[in-house]
Order: sequence, then C-alpha cells, then structure tokens
Amino acid sequence: MAANAAKFLYRSRCFSSFRWYSASSYTYRTHTCGELRKDHVGSHVTLCGWTQKSRVMGKVGVVFVPLSDATGTTQVVTDNEEHREVLQSLPTESVVLVEGVVSDRPGHNLNKDMSTGDIEVQAKNIKILNKSSESLSFYPFSKAGGNTTEEMRLRERCLEIRRHQLQNILRFRSKVSSIIRQYLISEGFIEVETPTLFKPTPEGAREYLVPTREKGKFYSLAQSPQQFKQLLMVGGVDRYFQFARCYRDETSRVDRQPEFTQIDLEMSFTSAQDLMSLIESMMTQLLKSLDYKFTAPFPVMTYREAMDDYGSDKPDTRLGMKFNWLSEKFKDTSTLVAFDIPKEFLNQKKGLSFDTSVEMSNGIIFTYRNGHVNVIADGGGVLSESIINDKENTINKLKEILGDRDCVVTSFDEEKHKDSALDNLGKFRIENGSFLKETKELHSQFELLWVTGFPLFEEEEEGGGTVIKSVHHPFTAPVPEHEELMYSTDANQLTKIVGQQYDLVVNGWELGGGSIRIHNPLLQEHVFENILKAETTSFSHLIKGLWSGCPPHGGIALGLDRLIALLCNTKTIKEVIAFPKSLQGYDAMCGSPATLTDDQLLEYHLKIN
Amino acid sequence: MAANAAKFLYRSRCFSSFRWYSASSYTYRTHTCGELRKDHVGSHVTLCGWTQKSRVMGKVGVVFVPLSDATGTTQVVTDNEEHREVLQSLPTESVVLVEGVVSDRPGHNLNKDMSTGDIEVQAKNIKILNKSSESLSFYPFSKAGGNTTEEMRLRERCLEIRRHQLQNILRFRSKVSSIIRQYLISEGFIEVETPTLFKPTPEGAREYLVPTREKGKFYSLAQSPQQFKQLLMVGGVDRYFQFARCYRDETSRVDRQPEFTQIDLEMSFTSAQDLMSLIESMMTQLLKSLDYKFTAPFPVMTYREAMDDYGSDKPDTRLGMKFNWLSEKFKDTSTLVAFDIPKEFLNQKKGLSFDTSVEMSNGIIFTYRNGHVNVIADGGGVLSESIINDKENTINKLKEILGDRDCVVTSFDEEKHKDSALDNLGKFRIENGSFLKETKELHSQFELLWVTGFPLFEEEEEGGGTVIKSVHHPFTAPVPEHEELMYSTDANQLTKIVGQQYDLVVNGWELGGGSIRIHNPLLQEHVFENILKAETTSFSHLIKGLWSGCPPHGGIALGLDRLIALLCNTKTIKEVIAFPKSLQGYDAMCGSPATLTDDQLLEYHLKIN
Repeated sequence: MAANAAKFLYRSRCFSSFRWYSASSYTYRTHTCGELRKDHVGSHVTLCGWTQKSRVMGKVGVVFVPLSDATGTTQVVTDNEEHREVLQSLPTESVVLVEGVVSDRPGHNLNKDMSTGDIEVQAKNIKILNKSSESLSFYPFSKAGGNTTEEMRLRERCLEIRRHQLQNILRFRSKVSSIIRQYLISEGFIEVETPTLFKPTPEGAREYLVPTREKGKFYSLAQSPQQFKQLLMVGGVDRYFQFARCYRDETSRVDRQPEFTQIDLEMSFTSAQDLMSLIESMMTQLLKSLDYKFTAPFPVMTYREAMDDYGSDKPDTRLGMKFNWLSEKFKDTSTLVAFDIPKEFLNQKKGLSFDTSVEMSNGIIFTYRNGHVNVIADGGGVLSESIINDKENTINKLKEILGDRDCVVTSFDEEKHKDSALDNLGKFRIENGSFLKETKELHSQFELLWVTGFPLFEEEEEGGGTVIKSVHHPFTAPVPEHEELMYSTDANQLTKIVGQQYDLVVNGWELGGGSIRIHNPLLQEHVFENILKAETTSFSHLIKGLWSGCPPHGGIALGLDRLIALLCNTKTIKEVIAFPKSLQGYDAMCGSPATLTDDQLLEYHLKIN
Repeated sequence: MAANAAKFLYRSRCFSSFRWYSASSYTYRTHTCGELRKDHVGSHVTLCGWTQKSRVMGKVGVVFVPLSDATGTTQVVTDNEEHREVLQSLPTESVVLVEGVVSDRPGHNLNKDMSTGDIEVQAKNIKILNKSSESLSFYPFSKAGGNTTEEMRLRERCLEIRRHQLQNILRFRSKVSSIIRQYLISEGFIEVETPTLFKPTPEGAREYLVPTREKGKFYSLAQSPQQFKQLLMVGGVDRYFQFARCYRDETSRVDRQPEFTQIDLEMSFTSAQDLMSLIESMMTQLLKSLDYKFTAPFPVMTYREAMDDYGSDKPDTRLGMKFNWLSEKFKDTSTLVAFDIPKEFLNQKKGLSFDTSVEMSNGIIFTYRNGHVNVIADGGGVLSESIINDKENTINKLKEILGDRDCVVTSFDEEKHKDSALDNLGKFRIENGSFLKETKELHSQFELLWVTGFPLFEEEEEGGGTVIKSVHHPFTAPVPEHEELMYSTDANQLTKIVGQQYDLVVNGWELGGGSIRIHNPLLQEHVFENILKAETTSFSHLIKGLWSGCPPHGGIALGLDRLIALLCNTKTIKEVIAFPKSLQGYDAMCGSPATLTDDQLLEYHLKIN
C-alpha cells in the first residue's frame, strides 16, 4: 500500500469511526494501548502489549518503555530498580502486563504525534507474559526496524499482521463484510452454505482435485457455488447469498490466489435491471457509510461501447482518454503505418497530460510497443524515414491529423480483428495512464460502472477448426430478442447473440459479474448439446433441476478480495489477505504444498507418476 | 425432524418473528404467496409461485389453483376459459406469474388453516414462467405427495429444499448465524478468513489431500483454523472469529460430514473463565432472542464429576438419572455379578419413569447388554439361578439394596478401568433415557453446561507398548498448578495433568470445545518432543510464532451444524445442511465423488495404484 493510500485509508471515516471494543470485557487488561487520554489521569489501569525499545533518562535512571498493540502505543514509565532491570533485559516485542497509574506527561515529554501523547503510565507492577526471541526478522511497530521485502512479509506473516497497516486492512475487511451482510439480510437474502467438495467436471482444467479413500474416486474443489445457487433457486430459496470460498488452480495468472472469497448471490423472479439496481444500492450504501467519494447512478455502457471508447471491457474511466475514431482522416494516409520513436523520449515518464482522446501533449512517450499500436507524433518526434516514402507530404498530412494535439496513438487491423486492435490500444492507454495515478491522486476517486451487452458466444480455434465457446459460462440467458438466434447453426449468427450479462467495473478492475440464467431446460440442453457440443452428464443434476419447476433467476458474484484491495488501494489482493499464497501457490510461512509419504498416498490408492 | 419438533419450531418465536422481506423490491412480483390478507382486498397484485393441484367448481367451470412459495400459499381463481385451459394443462409445480385482484373469499370457501384463507386472487392475466416435468419424485408442498425416503430427499435435494420444513431450517440457520456474528462483532471480534489449503501433516490420518501441478507436492484441507488462529493472536489480532469451513475425512463415523462449519474464535489476554463467560453470554443472547427455554448460568462440572455422575463427558442432564455409588452396599454381595432379565420385559418399552438415580420403576427394561452393565431388579425380575448360590440370602440383600426402588443398574470393573465401566453405564442411561424424550417432550428443553478439568494426556496402547497422546490437542495449556508436572517422565504423573479445557455440552451433545493454549515456546517444544515424541518440523511455523512475542490466548470452536440441529431438534446434522453428503461421503444429487480421466490425473502427476 502506497504511503498516500495509507493516509487516505486513515483519513476516511472507515478507520476514524472504528469503535475499539470495550477492552475490559472478558480480559484481565482494563484498557488497550491506544485508549488512554488526559481524562484517565489518576486511574489505575492494567495494560497488555508488546514492549518497544526502552530509553533510560537522567541519573536516577527512569526507564521509558513504549507499550504497543493494534490500537496504539502508551508510554510506560518506572524508576523502580527491579522493574528497570526486567524491562531492560527484555527483548523488544516481548509481551508484558503493566499495572499502573495514568499520569500527565511533563511538558517537555508531551508527544503530539501520539494519540496517547498527553499521558504516561507510572508502572506499579510489571509481569512478563512471554519473552520474545532476541532477534526478529523485522520489528512491526518500529519505523526504523520495519524495512521488509515481500518475501519476508509472506514468510513472517505474524509480524506483518502485527503492523498497523495489515492489521487495519483486516479490521476494515471484517467491517466491509459485515456492512454487506447486513444490507443483504435487510433485503431478505439468506446466507446458505453450499458444498466446496464438488463433482469434478471432465473439462475442469482449473479445478483442484480431492482424492477419496474409494479407489479412483475424486471430489473437485468448487470453483464457485454457481450450480448450487441455481439449484437453491429451484428449491424456492428466493434470495440467497454467501461469502463463498472458491478454488481455482491458476496460480500462474497475475494476482490470483488458489483460494479466494466471493460475495455470491442469486435471486428469483427478477431482471438484469433489478439485479444491477440491487448491487448499485448495496455498493452505494457501503461506500457512503465508509465515506468514499464516488458517482451514482453508475454509468452503464455496452461491451461494444467499452471496447470502442476505451479498448477494454473493464475501462478505467478515471483516466479520461476516450478514443476518437480517426479512420476518416487516415483514408488517404495508408503510408502512416509505423513511426519510430526518438530515443530521447523513452525515459521521460513525467509531466504527461492526457485529454479526452488518446493524445499526449508536451512530447511523446511511448513505452509500449505491441502489435499494431503506433504513435503519430509532433513535438520533436522523428518519423521513420525507411517507411515514409513521401516525407514532406506525410508530415503535412500528419500535422493535419494532429491539429492542435501533440500526439495521436493509433491502432488498426482488419475489421474482423477490430477488438484485438482496440485491445492493444486499450493496453497502451492503461500503461501510460497509470503514470498519472500518482500525480492526480486517482486513488481517492472511485468510478463504478456497468458493462452489459456481452456476446454470449465466441469462436475459438481448436484442432485446426473453430469451435463455439461460452464467453461467460453456459448458463447465461440470451436477451429475449435474440432467443430465436440460439437455434441458428451459423457460427456468425451465434456470435451475434447478446447475453443478459452485466459486469461491475471499478477503477478498471472487474469487481464482479453476473447474469440472468437460462431457466428453460430445453434451451439449456440445446446450449450444451447443439451449440457447445459438450457432454451433458456432468450437468444432469442442473438440467434435472430446471425440469422440476425452476423459476426465472439471476445473480452475481463480486470478488471480496478485489473489493477490499480497491477500497484500500493496494496493488495486489495478497495485501488484503491474512495468509496469502505466493504467485506460485506457496505458503512461505508454513511451507505448503509439501511432499507426502508413500503410505499416505496409498490410503488414497495413488502413486506419483 | 419429528412432527412435534416441527411444531415446536413453528411455535417458537424464531419463526413467527420472521419478517418476510418486502417482495416488491428488485422483482416483478408485488407480493409473496404467504403475504395477502383481508387488508389487501381490492389491490391489484402480481404473484409468482408454484402451481398446486387445481380444482374445477360448478357448471360455469371456475378453476381454483393454489399458488405456493416458501412463505405460503394463495388461492388463485379464474373463470376465464383460456386461463382455465392453461392452468389445467400445466403440470403441478410449474412456475407461473399471476396478475389479479385480491378479493374476499365467499363464506363457504374461508379456510382458517391457511394464513391467506380469508382471500383469493381473481386472475386477470396468467403467464407461464416455466413448465415443470410431468412427474416429480415427490411434491414438496403437498401432504399427500410428500412421502419420501432419505435417499429421495438427498437425491432430489431441490424439491426437498422447496418443502417448508428444510426451507425454514435454512432460513433459521441464516438467522442464527447472523445473531452470533452480530454478537461477536459487538464484543470487538473481527472476522478473518484463514486458508483451507494447508500443509499436510505426517500423521494427518483424517486429512483430505489436494494434489498440485508440482510433482509430488500436496496441500491438505485444513481440519480447523487452529494454527492460523493462534498465529493471528501472535499477530496482535486480539479477538478473532470465523464461520470456518472445516474438512475431515471420517465419513464412516456417525452423523459426520466431510465438510462442516464451525464458529471459530480466539482471543488474547484472557482466561478460561472469561472465555466461558463470553460464550455463555453469546448463547444466552441467542437463545433469548429465539425464545428458547433454558437455564442460566450454565452449570459447570468437571470431567470427573461428569463421568462419576452420568458416565459421560457430555451428559444429557435433561434425563435426570444421576448415578449413585452403591459400592458400600455391594461390599458383601460379590455374588451379585449378573442377572438374567425376564423375557417378558424385553418389549415393554413404554411407561418408564426414572428418578435421580439409575433406577427404573414399574418393571425392568433392559435393551442394552454390553460389557459389565447389569440390572438388579425387583418387580417381577427373575434372578439368574445359575449365578446365585444362596438365593434367599441374595434376594434379601437385593431388597435391601433396592430399598423402595424397583430396579438398580450396576456397572463395575477394576479401578483402572473405572471410566470404561462408567462409560458403559452412561450408554445404558442414554439409550434407555432416550425412550423418554418423546413422552416428556424433552425437545423443548435446553440444558447447557460446561465440562472442564479434562486430563491433558492419556496413555494409549500402540505397537505392544504404551504411548502418551493428547486428549484434546497438543496446544492446550495445563492448569497453572500442574505446570511442573509437565516435566515429569512418569506416564502416571503426566496423565494426572489437568488441562485448561472447557467443553460446552447441550442436551448430551458436545456443541464445542476450547482451551487456553500454550503460549510459551519452550513448553510447546517440550510437549511435542519429550511428551508426545512427535516430529516438530510440521509445526515449526507455530513454534516460530510463539517465539515472536505471542500473547497468552485461548479460544473455542462451536459446531454450527450441531447447534442448528439442536435448536431444530433434528436427529442428524444432514437435516440442517442444504446439500449434505451421505454417510459414505456421496452427493446423491450431483453424483460425486466421481472418476477422472488418466489425462486429468497426469496433470497432477498421479496414477491410480
């Protein structure tokens, strides 16, 4: 978490409004280490906490020991010889109990940077609860001793959790979960726990497997409660939600975790519009109660608009930089295919400003070279001589295109690869736009929007031919006006079908997605058998459910880890998870995954191949 | 769930106070099927629900169709010919939308057994949302078509969920979880999600394994968050809770599920007494808000008392039948070792009453013959001639022992097998006492109690010798006065050590157990290495945590499935789980576990052995 993001986190009401629990219930301490103020002067208190580096002052040998816990730090003072020896011999981060009296700090000792800086506790009794080791990898409450690498933060996770930063994120996460739960319960949703030990699917390439003691029989770990929640709708549970643990074996993908949590919900007798309104109301209530700035109602754009305007199906609209269509202007400039970028601009990453088109003023920066993205530039850019035949004419044409802009970035391809060209331009936009985040303090800005109108199917190349695949999943219903198209056998027609799908996008992240599902068993069978040419046996329970009086229904799943990461402005979801795994799926703290003995494998009738 | 238990469930405030959500938010219906009353007469409404068997009345052909959902049933009426045909051709349990006007029922049609029995809806428009199959295994809203076997209820789980019984249990479960969450949050606990993909332990005989794509490397599925929650305490998260999914591969054991949910919590700077008070306050708040009758404060008994008085470490005190020590009286009746039971009593299972000792009046019933349990009887019992040498003297002695009781059940063994003898007697008590449950309506009674003072270690025979094992788990701390005993090398001394453990027992079920944990790393190492002779590498992360400034801490885990089963008075936890697995771990609905292809196994470098 960047320093200013941390500040933002503290500024926002989510933290300032934390009511620290009454520390005196069910514990032998009377207060936490962040709680005492001038009002407490004279009180007898018992504190428990972690000792920080002590200081000895003056000839009489008064010892000052800062005592810390998650809520703050209180200065403990003693001139008792025995206490002094005890405290000075204790390794930093040892756990002690201090009984004492709260007193005013002498004027020269006041500390305005500490919330407890007006007082100190004169120790009457000190009890060592647990000595810490002499040397720790880092010191969580200490600024000086707090330099860490990511590897250390994962390996020494307990110490990392003890730091205010992660501690606060975990407390914040719990609060966010609680607000969302309360909201959904108030709307009549019930939380139902669905199994995670599920049936493996033949094509479940990203499924974890769980062998059983029955030879050759396996569970899989559910990738989501999708099928179970649809079956709950069949069962007449109108409004279901769950904070569901999901499992996906795809650790090589950026910022994924083998297990993650999604806010999963489903409801019957509803429409895409109703579901979007519900989630919008939920997010609005959440963000308002946490004092975040955002715009509501959330804009809605279609997949086509998102691609055409931002080259992404999850546009970060905070950046501006909406695309302009330049095709008209390029009509007779087919020579302007590629330009070299002058070297002297490559390291100039500062001082950029973008306007609403894909333009850069004050010189060109181009750090991204992929596919067909090209930069047309003024402001010192040197055009590649090798490519441009008619230099003078080209430059004139270029100036005409640029108008009063300094730079235009283009991307083009054949019509059928249009989305791929837009995608390239979109990536360029994001990579360059991200330089702006720090200068513009984008992190205090929340832009939520809906993307709808996704195609239901896409063509994919497979084994020399092409096959039809679901863009989202095979359970998404088409928009009513395209229902007839579902029975077409022409791939070009099928890929035109629009699904009743909606993605919630926040600051360029796909926070979640959902859809109205197919409730007609015949249509669902048709999708499996005739469109996707998939075997249906592994979905027979679902089809059977649709045959037993299944109400029309739809739902959504929002990534909780992503939501918290967005709200806390961390770079990865690892930073908002208590015990995350590395990109490779390792738990550096406890050393998993690990090897097994042959006997253990034998119990499950397995052998390493 | 027995019929009277269901009634109880409905009677109790937990159900009557259900505020059905506003059905008009985010949906195209205006009301649910259980909502309309006399007040609504004249309103235009839109209902969605499942059609029940229709009736045609009179010559004009008025059709009555009951329309049901989870909240109730509303009678829909139409005399429109088109509607009539549609409705009559629809299979029962089809899903329809009805627009119409609420009207008073004519006097002869009033139905006092239905909450909507004063009104009916005159249909203006009927839309079929989804046709059901012509024949279903059973009809969830129908009494006549509702006969099911357990196998059917598991296989056709969607239909089972649609029945009011399971539907209400799921809604109740969600409500209970919400009350508990709110309570814990109000006490300053935060919910932290801990990983379920964990490190396999060498002795983890009940652990599920999860192969990874790295050859020979496995995760295990965590049996509980025990180690993670202790590490959170090291991290300074003072008060943690989680509704944690746990996994145990022990499906052969009675009423277990491969995955289950526990209310898991842990706190720092606390005592066993504080933790017990916290849980007592939580349970009290829960039960009060649900209008259950119970006694508080909960009695506390030691393991020794529980065994001596009830022959069980989880006594069902509702039964009474506290044991009496008869040893004194038996001093010179060594001949009274065994008695045969007259056959004519074997089938008389009714009309029993027990008093506070293990006695039965009105004749003897003995259906339990196991080990050393014996019944001494009057009231027609015939003593075994073969065993009793001096019949007349024995009978006199017997009468003296019996006093004014009709029956005494005894159990004895050598001193060192005392607990086993008590256990046998305890089983006898439960098996016979359970006959009383129905006659005495024990299910409306809640008796919660604490059992404490468990031994920390027990001796177990293994490979010809004996080894020391943890009774609970190796992380439980001894009571302070036994801390020195921990360093004894004498097994007899070690088994005398009492742990700081507490079990919460409800109506004879162990609802949960917890303990104060060992926070001293040296003591924890000593337990692993010298007492249990276990390898410590797989716990090295925990030991390391204890070395990094670990506060004293303790916690508890309560079985959520068990809690709901107790509150709903179901016989098994399967009846309170939306999608349970069978005793053998099968999911009859979706057919898991299932076989895999060799290719799928190959991805994980595995081969079936």
